[in-house]
Amino acid sequence: MEFDNWSKSEKGIARRAFDAAYARECKAIENEVRKRMGNLREKNDLWKIHDYLSQQRRDIDRKYDYRYGVLIHVFGVLLYQGWITIEDLSGLSEEKIEAVRRLARMWAE
Amino acid sequence: MEFDNWSKSEKGIARRAFDAAYARECKAIENEVRKRMGNLREKNDLWKIHDYLSQQRRDIDRKYDYRYGVLIHVFGVLLYQGWITIEDLSGLSEEKIEAVRRLARMWAE
Repeated sequence: MEFDNWSKSEKGIARRAFDAAYARECKAIENEVRKRMGNLREKNDLWKIHDYLSQQRRDIDRKYDYRYGVLIHVFGVLLYQGWITIEDLSGLSEEKIEAVRRLARMWAE
Repeated sequence: MEFDNWSKSEKGIARRAFDAAYARECKAIENEVRKRMGNLREKNDLWKIHDYLSQQRRDIDRKYDYRYGVLIHVFGVLLYQGWITIEDLSGLSEEKIEAVRRLARMWAE
């Protein structure tokens, strides 16, 4: 399931959806760090925040791969995880949107 | 310059000075993270905080070595960096305190 036929307008839509998801996810991590910083109790808690950031960074680096050959898969994960809605993809071809939906459902199963 | 002759009372003093320095340094890192969290501007800033924490953790893991064979050296660094004062060591033998002072001066040069 690869789509190499991205029109210029689709590329713009994809880029915006991708960047918005990235920004939302970073914001969520930021909020979690802020919350944990407000709850430091034991001397190890600061390093637990560091562990948390290390893990998130690894996950994000792996997930946010903007190559057109894999982008449908990336959007499938992002839709499943709630970082994008199907509306963010509005303007992509029907078959691309259907493929993203299908992948998100697969993750959900 | 090794001191293996730590009395029970000296061990108590050393432990408290060591733990206090660790707590102060962690507090300073915590404050720095809080400050940086309040100044997030670019999308990379969160990962710069992560880099900062990684660096601090490496430094701290290397520095805080509580073995009696190296403790005088550790205190020399901590005195030089300002994480302990000479008063924190009050109760250690004169020769130990003098050795810590000498090491701190060497770092300062």
